[in-house]
Amino acid sequence: MDCVFCAIVAGDLPASTVYDDDRVLAFADIRPATTGHLLVVPKRHAADLAALEPQDGARMFQVAQRLAAGLRNSPLEPEGVNLFLADGEVAGQEVFHAHLHVLPRRTGDGFGVRADFASPSREELDRVAGLVRDALGDPG
Amino acid sequence: MDCVFCAIVAGDLPASTVYDDDRVLAFADIRPATTGHLLVVPKRHAADLAALEPQDGARMFQVAQRLAAGLRNSPLEPEGVNLFLADGEVAGQEVFHAHLHVLPRRTGDGFGVRADFASPSREELDRVAGLVRDALGDPG
Repeated sequence: MDCVFCAIVAGDLPASTVYDDDRVLAFADIRPATTGHLLVVPKRHAADLAALEPQDGARMFQVAQRLAAGLRNSPLEPEGVNLFLADGEVAGQEVFHAHLHVLPRRTGDGFGVRADFASPSREELDRVAGLVRDALGDPG
Repeated sequence: MDCVFCAIVAGDLPASTVYDDDRVLAFADIRPATTGHLLVVPKRHAADLAALEPQDGARMFQVAQRLAAGLRNSPLEPEGVNLFLADGEVAGQEVFHAHLHVLPRRTGDGFGVRADFASPSREELDRVAGLVRDALGDPG
């Protein structure tokens, strides 16, 4: 078994656990971007979003929401929280076991997002939306 | 009504919709960070994660997962996908109606995360995890 998160779930590697249920485990990221940076992972191995059981994904989000509330109520007292998930190497995924980052935020904490924002026309937005709608497996 | 996402849900403002169900709506971000940038919002107004109905949060994530698959199957052909949520102004939240970003990613697309990663000791990770565990409303 080469998956570090599976090893943590199995208890074969140490982790600073904050939450544990039948579907997911949450623990402190060992390389925190901000103090209190947590990861929520499914117990059942899923390399990426495509492999992730939708019920596990739903639970991951619900647990992230609870952890965000816990962080805000804790002495860590963040002013905000980011949730972040990287699906694929290009997106920044480093461990190929799906994981949702919960990042407490404070002014001047050094964390941020950079982007080149565009302002497409409504016609272009409609065209792109249509491409995605057509690609969804079944009607929404 | 001052909430732009509530106005979109009500049909009072235009949107390039990609998905619509009883709980959530997804549409193209009018200021895309990358081509195909989508937003998933709950239909019931919730300013932030604290106000968000957990079942709506679960559905938002499940829909984001489906949209990620749709994007990958579409002619937009991203190489990866990021999910991102900002809770609070410090975290980058601009519209105070909870929303989950679905960002198709491609090499050199200009999107990225910056962070000052730390390498705390296990003792420090355990201390921080304990603070969060103690702050969670009920045992996990």
